[in-house]
Amino acid sequence: MTSPTQFSSAKDKTLFTPGPLTTSQNVKQAMLRDLGSRDMAFLEVVSNVRQTLLAIAGVSREKGYEAVLLQGSGTFGIESVIGSTVPANGKLLVIINGAYGVRLAKIAEVLKIDTALLEYAPNTVPVPSDVDRILTEDQAITNVAVVHCETTTGIINPIEKIGQIIKHHEKVYFVDSMSAFGAVLFDFEKCGIDFLVSSANKCIEGVPGFSFTICRRDSLHATEGRARSVSLDLLAQWQGLEANGQFRFTPPTHAILAFQQALCELQAEGGVEGRAARYRDNFQTLVAGMREMGFAEYLRPELQGTIITAFRYPNHPHFQFEEFYTRLNNKGYVIYPGKVSSTDCFRIGNIGHLFESDIRALLAAIRATLSEMVITLPCN
Amino acid sequence: MTSPTQFSSAKDKTLFTPGPLTTSQNVKQAMLRDLGSRDMAFLEVVSNVRQTLLAIAGVSREKGYEAVLLQGSGTFGIESVIGSTVPANGKLLVIINGAYGVRLAKIAEVLKIDTALLEYAPNTVPVPSDVDRILTEDQAITNVAVVHCETTTGIINPIEKIGQIIKHHEKVYFVDSMSAFGAVLFDFEKCGIDFLVSSANKCIEGVPGFSFTICRRDSLHATEGRARSVSLDLLAQWQGLEANGQFRFTPPTHAILAFQQALCELQAEGGVEGRAARYRDNFQTLVAGMREMGFAEYLRPELQGTIITAFRYPNHPHFQFEEFYTRLNNKGYVIYPGKVSSTDCFRIGNIGHLFESDIRALLAAIRATLSEMVITLPCN
Repeated sequence: MTSPTQFSSAKDKTLFTPGPLTTSQNVKQAMLRDLGSRDMAFLEVVSNVRQTLLAIAGVSREKGYEAVLLQGSGTFGIESVIGSTVPANGKLLVIINGAYGVRLAKIAEVLKIDTALLEYAPNTVPVPSDVDRILTEDQAITNVAVVHCETTTGIINPIEKIGQIIKHHEKVYFVDSMSAFGAVLFDFEKCGIDFLVSSANKCIEGVPGFSFTICRRDSLHATEGRARSVSLDLLAQWQGLEANGQFRFTPPTHAILAFQQALCELQAEGGVEGRAARYRDNFQTLVAGMREMGFAEYLRPELQGTIITAFRYPNHPHFQFEEFYTRLNNKGYVIYPGKVSSTDCFRIGNIGHLFESDIRALLAAIRATLSEMVITLPCN
Repeated sequence: MTSPTQFSSAKDKTLFTPGPLTTSQNVKQAMLRDLGSRDMAFLEVVSNVRQTLLAIAGVSREKGYEAVLLQGSGTFGIESVIGSTVPANGKLLVIINGAYGVRLAKIAEVLKIDTALLEYAPNTVPVPSDVDRILTEDQAITNVAVVHCETTTGIINPIEKIGQIIKHHEKVYFVDSMSAFGAVLFDFEKCGIDFLVSSANKCIEGVPGFSFTICRRDSLHATEGRARSVSLDLLAQWQGLEANGQFRFTPPTHAILAFQQALCELQAEGGVEGRAARYRDNFQTLVAGMREMGFAEYLRPELQGTIITAFRYPNHPHFQFEEFYTRLNNKGYVIYPGKVSSTDCFRIGNIGHLFESDIRALLAAIRATLSEMVITLPCN
């Protein structure tokens, strides 16, 4: 094989993506250690991390909540919740307004779990009264799943209003908060969430390698015997961590060390509030600059979250996304393709170790790229 | 949360475990980068890594083989093979002589896959003629699984002889080569292996975060429609990598960068032969030193591999494993508890970035520990 790229000299590109993200140097340097997976030093890190995740969620073990880390990407965590919590004869209602909602339904389908779908266009939010109606009509439904921030568009779904209806119907509530947790303020208990999943390489700004589930202990206990997998057995994973502090199977020790450092940096920034503020600043700078150049967001402003923004392709004969992407990439800026099937969009993320200066640098690079491509937009 | 342990000053303990292992400084430093998971720079790394894995196995795409990386620990890779390759009405024969064989059977059971078990004591190797007999008697069997190096004891199983019988019966052959691949010489094609799994943090000496499967393309194609999971769908994972070079779900970019560096170091050491030689030296130094102090191996010498060695607890009233372990740990040497249920053992691994000097340092620490515990063994 060819020799690996030099890692010491070259400056990495800045990532304006939904993750893996640009992380701080200290987060990466925390990985320059080899800890034994059963060694006390590592078990203390795991214990710290689990406790801090609960604190970030505004809950605690005393209040009856638990945090479970699971190897693999965020999707592995989602499959572990769906596969471990829906009873054999249960039925899952999936609320969909984007590709990640569709993925929840796909996972249930492959696991041969009966599902009901409540679907919306990607530029609209789910309507809580629709959820109420379906739960009233279809008494077979036992579990409900919804995405918090749909990374397809960056839309923020009303997880509290939906949650209150689900609790009224006494169903189990699963929130896929992959790209929101850690940077979007919400009241975990008021939402009535039973299971929430996010991953290491999103708003906590760690490196990829594992996901985590924050859940009500009662709800977790109630899943006994439901798991459809050994690797993705959420209850067994928790029981393993509780028994001796260890993972059942080899943990990504380095990614967990990086995550511990990332959690410290989150706290130093003022927790969820501080991080949300930085991302909001990034977002506002980005959108103002993009509008000034003549770009338009896909979503109406009142639906748009500050995590990631989908922009419509400009209506100009010279605009080719591949060329636009590559030219920005060559300048050191990585943006993200779109995922809305009906509308041509690209996406720009505000999350990661990014600051207003990074956004301004990206805006300058986009301006230069438009000029190179001889594209003059209406508002230019 | 408490501030993370300082990562720059302290020297890490040396790990004499089956993984995560002590890795080289360059392997860890390869993680000081944030690459976009869809960026060309990263896709080239993935492509390099997949190709090099085939070369290490002594096979190639031209010969009809493929390498698939999967997020999660080695067990996730094993479950992906079992869950993706055994047909809905198939039956899996599991050959067991240790805890990792038991785990294969456990995974099949949870996946509701019909199984037949061929069980041996942990200090004996499977007998190929037994496999022949079972495959002749039980025509329902479609797949056979065996562990290559049983980490429970360090025993090396006769995967070639077993494989030839399986091929004679035209069954699908799965080898769990977790702790052997990269440091144990074998002829992949002669063994008739359809699917082989290992992981990043074993003999290749990378960091944990993913597993890999090396398989016959024909055998992989034949699994269409069998997967019992989305995250662990082996064929879909391969199809994703083939379609655009990308992972379906967020890959552990940093662990893969470390792995690329680890593969380079393996090649620089002379490939599998060179690495096997170093581990054999480590093993011989270890066993000679341990015997000199009065310790005895659990296995008969002709069955013992050079990856990891199980030693019996010495028959001395002062010997307490917990104290022995902790005293060694405090000196900076991490050994591993036993896993044979019928016999009290502990284990010492020879794999990772360990050299004869490390083994000698461990031996000196063990000698000092015995002295502190006032233990004089017969041969001392």
